[in-house]
Amino acid sequence: MDVVGIGETMVLFSPKANGSIRYARDFSSRCAGAETNTLIGLSRLGHKTGWISKIGKDELGEFIISTVRGEGVDTSKVLCDSSAPTGIFFKGVVNEKDTRMYYYRKGSAASKITPKDIDKQYILKAKYLYITGITPALSQSCYDSIFYAAEVARENGVKVVFDPNIRYKLWSGAYARETILKLAGMSDIVLPGLSEGKFVFEDKNYESIAQDFADNGASKVIIKLGEKGAYYLSGDDRGVVPSVKISHVVDPVGAGDGFAAGVLSGLLDGLSLKESVSRGCAVGSIVTTVNGDIEGLPDRETLKYFVESSNYNEINR
Amino acid sequence: MDVVGIGETMVLFSPKANGSIRYARDFSSRCAGAETNTLIGLSRLGHKTGWISKIGKDELGEFIISTVRGEGVDTSKVLCDSSAPTGIFFKGVVNEKDTRMYYYRKGSAASKITPKDIDKQYILKAKYLYITGITPALSQSCYDSIFYAAEVARENGVKVVFDPNIRYKLWSGAYARETILKLAGMSDIVLPGLSEGKFVFEDKNYESIAQDFADNGASKVIIKLGEKGAYYLSGDDRGVVPSVKISHVVDPVGAGDGFAAGVLSGLLDGLSLKESVSRGCAVGSIVTTVNGDIEGLPDRETLKYFVESSNYNEINR
Amino acid sequence: MDVVGIGETMVLFSPKANGSIRYARDFSSRCAGAETNTLIGLSRLGHKTGWISKIGKDELGEFIISTVRGEGVDTSKVLCDSSAPTGIFFKGVVNEKDTRMYYYRKGSAASKITPKDIDKQYILKAKYLYITGITPALSQSCYDSIFYAAEVARENGVKVVFDPNIRYKLWSGAYARETILKLAGMSDIVLPGLSEGKFVFEDKNYESIAQDFADNGASKVIIKLGEKGAYYLSGDDRGVVPSVKISHVVDPVGAGDGFAAGVLSGLLDGLSLKESVSRGCAVGSIVTTVNGDIEGLPDRETLKYFVESSNYNEINR
Amino acid sequence: MDVVGIGETMVLFSPKANGSIRYARDFSSRCAGAETNTLIGLSRLGHKTGWISKIGKDELGEFIISTVRGEGVDTSKVLCDSSAPTGIFFKGVVNEKDTRMYYYRKGSAASKITPKDIDKQYILKAKYLYITGITPALSQSCYDSIFYAAEVARENGVKVVFDPNIRYKLWSGAYARETILKLAGMSDIVLPGLSEGKFVFEDKNYESIAQDFADNGASKVIIKLGEKGAYYLSGDDRGVVPSVKISHVVDPVGAGDGFAAGVLSGLLDGLSLKESVSRGCAVGSIVTTVNGDIEGLPDRETLKYFVESSNYNEINR
Amino acid sequence: MDVVGIGETMVLFSPKANGSIRYARDFSSRCAGAETNTLIGLSRLGHKTGWISKIGKDELGEFIISTVRGEGVDTSKVLCDSSAPTGIFFKGVVNEKDTRMYYYRKGSAASKITPKDIDKQYILKAKYLYITGITPALSQSCYDSIFYAAEVARENGVKVVFDPNIRYKLWSGAYARETILKLAGMSDIVLPGLSEGKFVFEDKNYESIAQDFADNGASKVIIKLGEKGAYYLSGDDRGVVPSVKISHVVDPVGAGDGFAAGVLSGLLDGLSLKESVSRGCAVGSIVTTVNGDIEGLPDRETLKYFVESSNYNEINR
Amino acid sequence: MDVVGIGETMVLFSPKANGSIRYARDFSSRCAGAETNTLIGLSRLGHKTGWISKIGKDELGEFIISTVRGEGVDTSKVLCDSSAPTGIFFKGVVNEKDTRMYYYRKGSAASKITPKDIDKQYILKAKYLYITGITPALSQSCYDSIFYAAEVARENGVKVVFDPNIRYKLWSGAYARETILKLAGMSDIVLPGLSEGKFVFEDKNYESIAQDFADNGASKVIIKLGEKGAYYLSGDDRGVVPSVKISHVVDPVGAGDGFAAGVLSGLLDGLSLKESVSRGCAVGSIVTTVNGDIEGLPDRETLKYFVESSNYNEINR
Repeated sequence: MDVVGIGETMVLFSPKANGSIRYARDFSSRCAGAETNTLIGLSRLGHKTGWISKIGKDELGEFIISTVRGEGVDTSKVLCDSSAPTGIFFKGVVNEKDTRMYYYRKGSAASKITPKDIDKQYILKAKYLYITGITPALSQSCYDSIFYAAEVARENGVKVVFDPNIRYKLWSGAYARETILKLAGMSDIVLPGLSEGKFVFEDKNYESIAQDFADNGASKVIIKLGEKGAYYLSGDDRGVVPSVKISHVVDPVGAGDGFAAGVLSGLLDGLSLKESVSRGCAVGSIVTTVNGDIEGLPDRETLKYFVESSNYNEINR
Repeated sequence: MDVVGIGETMVLFSPKANGSIRYARDFSSRCAGAETNTLIGLSRLGHKTGWISKIGKDELGEFIISTVRGEGVDTSKVLCDSSAPTGIFFKGVVNEKDTRMYYYRKGSAASKITPKDIDKQYILKAKYLYITGITPALSQSCYDSIFYAAEVARENGVKVVFDPNIRYKLWSGAYARETILKLAGMSDIVLPGLSEGKFVFEDKNYESIAQDFADNGASKVIIKLGEKGAYYLSGDDRGVVPSVKISHVVDPVGAGDGFAAGVLSGLLDGLSLKESVSRGCAVGSIVTTVNGDIEGLPDRETLKYFVESSNYNEINR
Repeated sequence: MDVVGIGETMVLFSPKANGSIRYARDFSSRCAGAETNTLIGLSRLGHKTGWISKIGKDELGEFIISTVRGEGVDTSKVLCDSSAPTGIFFKGVVNEKDTRMYYYRKGSAASKITPKDIDKQYILKAKYLYITGITPALSQSCYDSIFYAAEVARENGVKVVFDPNIRYKLWSGAYARETILKLAGMSDIVLPGLSEGKFVFEDKNYESIAQDFADNGASKVIIKLGEKGAYYLSGDDRGVVPSVKISHVVDPVGAGDGFAAGVLSGLLDGLSLKESVSRGCAVGSIVTTVNGDIEGLPDRETLKYFVESSNYNEINR
Repeated sequence: MDVVGIGETMVLFSPKANGSIRYARDFSSRCAGAETNTLIGLSRLGHKTGWISKIGKDELGEFIISTVRGEGVDTSKVLCDSSAPTGIFFKGVVNEKDTRMYYYRKGSAASKITPKDIDKQYILKAKYLYITGITPALSQSCYDSIFYAAEVARENGVKVVFDPNIRYKLWSGAYARETILKLAGMSDIVLPGLSEGKFVFEDKNYESIAQDFADNGASKVIIKLGEKGAYYLSGDDRGVVPSVKISHVVDPVGAGDGFAAGVLSGLLDGLSLKESVSRGCAVGSIVTTVNGDIEGLPDRETLKYFVESSNYNEINR
Repeated sequence: MDVVGIGETMVLFSPKANGSIRYARDFSSRCAGAETNTLIGLSRLGHKTGWISKIGKDELGEFIISTVRGEGVDTSKVLCDSSAPTGIFFKGVVNEKDTRMYYYRKGSAASKITPKDIDKQYILKAKYLYITGITPALSQSCYDSIFYAAEVARENGVKVVFDPNIRYKLWSGAYARETILKLAGMSDIVLPGLSEGKFVFEDKNYESIAQDFADNGASKVIIKLGEKGAYYLSGDDRGVVPSVKISHVVDPVGAGDGFAAGVLSGLLDGLSLKESVSRGCAVGSIVTTVNGDIEGLPDRETLKYFVESSNYNEINR
Repeated sequence: MDVVGIGETMVLFSPKANGSIRYARDFSSRCAGAETNTLIGLSRLGHKTGWISKIGKDELGEFIISTVRGEGVDTSKVLCDSSAPTGIFFKGVVNEKDTRMYYYRKGSAASKITPKDIDKQYILKAKYLYITGITPALSQSCYDSIFYAAEVARENGVKVVFDPNIRYKLWSGAYARETILKLAGMSDIVLPGLSEGKFVFEDKNYESIAQDFADNGASKVIIKLGEKGAYYLSGDDRGVVPSVKISHVVDPVGAGDGFAAGVLSGLLDGLSLKESVSRGCAVGSIVTTVNGDIEGLPDRETLKYFVESSNYNEINR
């Protein structure tokens, strides 16, 4: 097993047309979960991945299972809770500057994950444990579970990879900051976005934010800079990797998860940190050119072609 | 105002194709609520109606409001609760014998209706108060509210019309039976289905069930007999009204609500009970020939044409 | 040229779901015209056909032209009138017994057909002229045109085939009756439905109706009897041809047009009247098993397979 | 009542894909009317509005009624004419520079509005009467009705708001100019687009056009300048309000109607003219980022968020 | 591993509307393969299954893999052939009696399966090997592979289950008969349809056909009798199991595959042959009430509910 | 007859959403063929065109026939081969830089065109023979047929128009180059894209490439330069015609075919080469603003409006 992830995946319903959601009559459903996005991205690139989670005993949960399993992610550790529903949410683009979300995830099956649901042996088989800052915000038992998992990994030489992925709606600012810092401190690799870094360490530039995370305990820090690419820091090895230029962002959601998949894929392949970050940038860019979180995730060939044709265009412009 | 109704209306999401819901990718949304179905049916037939309820402060709530208001039902007494979401549910036909529903209504805005939300003066303006057995099962405050409303109506000469509409999933059997009996006892008109009557008074035939409801306090009892029509009882005035024959039931849901609309419309028009029940049967039949709860509800002309062409076919067969 | 037809073809918009049309948000468009249905049916069976008509100078007219021409019907005599729009209509199934239509055909381009628009030489090249009772009801100039065409055909040995196709909404009863009788009197073959026959000659049975039409001038009369098949009469050659049994009528519209195509196809192939009527019944039956007027029209192979498998089932039941 | 509007609303059918409309098989229907767009925009922002109009006795008319009423606009003064159909039109994007429209509105129910259909008392209850230059072009009786309404308002202290909205296809240039001038002269607030201003007063700049309208009688003139914003003039109070920057215009139609709603909403809230125009610009901008005339109209919260996030981006660029 | 299956799965494209396929503009895609249908049916009921096959190196092949894997079937033995495309076919209901199929499977990746592609050890891990008569008809190498697999199973105590599934288009009658007989002779369980039995042993009744298959070597023979149920024979244990009554067959395709899944599931659960056949009938019935081959396949709960509600209805009629 | 074309037209299936094709469930079908695109473009502009080709005896072939015939192209010389299927292909936008195609055209009906299928007399009736470099790459018999047709035309004064349209997947580079040169040498008008010119004559600028083609035998050479327009050369008459500016390329496919239609239309109208190339540029531009190859092809009026409004904008910017 290369990477094990823990977290909630929900069914996302989105109107087929933009504008006030009240006018929508037709909705599409999709699987949406930060952790599974990354695991699927890794699986698409040929790595072995596994997912720990909980779904409700309902058809929406079955939809999630068959989608994630269909992508090649091992789902043998996903439990089914007959007392709680699978979480869902609605997302609609109200206007150009206003994307609205309505969650029905309170009391969801995944929010009932407890440390007992975390199979220690399963984590120990992996090279990396992938977690995000969403899970500890779901419930106390989720909070306990994610810390338990991180400790288990840490104590047994499984590298912890942490994407803060702060959902401000889910918890209070101070508590979020504290939890993020704690988890980041237990992690080997931290992958915050620039604005998340600013939130945690107040308003600073990316170099100092990266240093702060390093001082806080992470051996590798990668700050996502959006269109500008990413900054990485690992001891003295540091620098900015520019993103792959694209002409039109269709859907920015999922770019960060694809980025994480690309970085981890590079590290698993034995690439340097810089090369790995570069792969992360490429995967992140591809994802934004397509609607949906996983629909754009590339396999090796697609990734290669994308990078090459980008370089080609860059040179020939 | 002719009829005021109280109750929860949710947004229903249904897959565009039959089969296990896990395979669905495309969903349609609709407004679905027993009480608003009846109010809309009445409005379509030209009567003045009003609705008391609560929606969440979200776009799905706005969808409900604009739909119900668009049908001509007064929605000035529908409150908006910013602390709770609008209830939703999923309904899919898994196979011919198996329609499955998944509710996300626990803690919904409507479940937070309290007696204070019931505007007494609004009820007093109406000739009929229309309630169902769903509302008292939603929460204690809903229970209190519905009894409060029934009492207000009863004490002030507004006739109470009660459709048991028992949702067995929502409450325990004994408590349901007791509540239904209590509310039925406070009502002038009771409109149970045959199986509901059997549930409340144990296994009996429709004549004795009707008598039981009458003995329990209702002055008019109408037992819905499905394809066979309906049995009515009001003192010595009693009998079976046959249903209008149709060749294919497309969607049985909403037939009972349409039935109630037809009966009340007849009574508001000053028809005899038998004639009113006959109108109820016709509206109920039409509704089943069309997908959706309200899409088939007839205006006066459509109703007339349906009844006449049915009679014509009956004679010419 | 085997058959030339004259008449209006409109664009039909139908809601994608049944129920009150006010709820429809999605509509499908189709070409719909009695005469082109028959011409397309003939073309599908390998006969050469041509169409005389008028469309507006608009995209809906172009849609009609490309559809009809795409089916192999010659459209070189379809004129374009830049001063009037292409006629359109809406059709929706409100409930099982109630299909509603809304026409926007008043003053349409086709209603402006005048005798000058009828190319005499074009008609003379055909073996049959196919007309219906719809056209004379569209406008005075249409009335004049259809009589002009019938006379031209009659005087020059082109057989006139007439399907009354009475649209009661379009004209007054007395005038309709008179016009139908007049046109039927100028025709060699008349193809009324039973109820149309009853309307023209008052309430009688099909044998006497057929005789009435024969006495009125037609040498071949075929009365469509719906599910029972058709009755034909040509001098002493008479009898009932049973229809092909199907298990479910999906859409009855267009069956009569397909029937006419089948009958004419048989006659063009040199079959006996009885055999031709039998082919008409088969085509009519196929058409009703499919949504749309032309989507079910069979080519030779499909027709053969349909008849054979029907016979097979008939025998093996 | 805050604002009463008079005018025709039609059902718009648009192909689901761009390109020659002849290729379209799937159409969406929508309500489309300049006046109801503005009324709905006002209603969305919390103001009380009413609509005077006429629909045909058909399902398309019912669709219009339920949509407009559903938005909270009072439709009690919308009459139903059983002798004329509800107007409809088709709109398709043939290519980037070519949007084509086909109208079926000649002789429509709304074109049959007469002064008798205008309820004087209803107008007198309002603070503003909202009219456009479309209505007088529909028919002589519509012309009479709109002048009657304007006079009634004027004489009784109801402010007349006039958007020229010149549809060049509907009438001759000279007559249009004359009518627009006349109506503008009877209005308190005039809201022309720049090109309309140029059409009425020949080729000039916006300052002089505004002055011309003021000299012609309007106390407040607002010239819409498209992407540049709007120029307002009220005595000495004058200036340009810049528009809110958006990154992509999805559908410009309806922007002017939204602009009017924003301006009137501001005035009703007691804002200064400049602030009101600013609100108009914001609403107009939002509307263009979404397909459809009303789908993008904001409620208070959405408007606030849009303006704030625009300012934020402006500053942070 | 409970059951391993070998065979081709294709992508099926079907028009969204019935009628001549030439009118179709919108198509849905689905996975379709007799063997994977059965494996998925077994997986849905909780059994462990694996699939041996080949797909092309293309996105349609990836669609098949993710679908089958998503259902819980092990796909680790599905190879990818970069020199041949994944097979596809089109299926459309032309009319009630005429479903047409167009195949693009000649030279497909699956037709290139060779005995070397069959992992002997994988088969030996299973309790049953599931094969059909389709595979040997695809190519000589497929023929060789299926016989190789059957021999491997037979020699090592893995039970061979064989569904003839004769596709008359794929091969000549004599050769088909010979091959079917040969494979049936190597099988423990044979599951022919009645007409297949008649084809192989000429025209006889089901009892004698079953005996013929038994004499040919099978220890258990089950003849599918369509609506009448199924006849089973295993030594002296024989009889007819009636099918579960349903009111409407929506799509008969896939019923046989579901039947096989039900029978094998029963046997794996240790049920008697009769009980297993009964389960097969129930699964087959469910499948026909839903569109698609796998969309109706039941899990345990759905199966139980279906059987119980059928019995209930049977008794209460 | 103005122009006769020879070549294969296939049915194209494209997913309704972008992203990996494996996620697609809904596909649209379209006719796609370089030669028919040009013929349809010419037909739309009022020229008489005919098509020589072969389809399979299947519904997809019938779809192609009715589409092309519906556009007014004569299809009387399109043969039907009952032994081979109509070619199809899939095309999906995987991401911004990656459009993927999967062909099922090997052994297609059109690949079986032989010189015997080319009706010499039919070609002789035309002013231009239109061919592309795709056809000779389909099969040896196609290769022979296209050379036969070119010779027939050449010997009899029918001008040969040749668009290289090199599909690198279909043949080896050297062979492609040789064949293109040979066909170009037999042609009067050659219409390569710039990159095609570079491929044939190695890396050079457009002026020298044009001269090379002229030296190779063509009397008129037009090099398509994409957004920059086109360069033409005919003896001393040479120059660059700028393209019509558009703001957004929606779908570049089909632009070259539209370009050819525009150029030929100009020449048929007796315009100068420069004017004809200018028309070609305009048609090519329009086509790219709309999805699909033929959906954007303009009629005369649309073309005129497009050019005028472009000029207008150009001047007023």
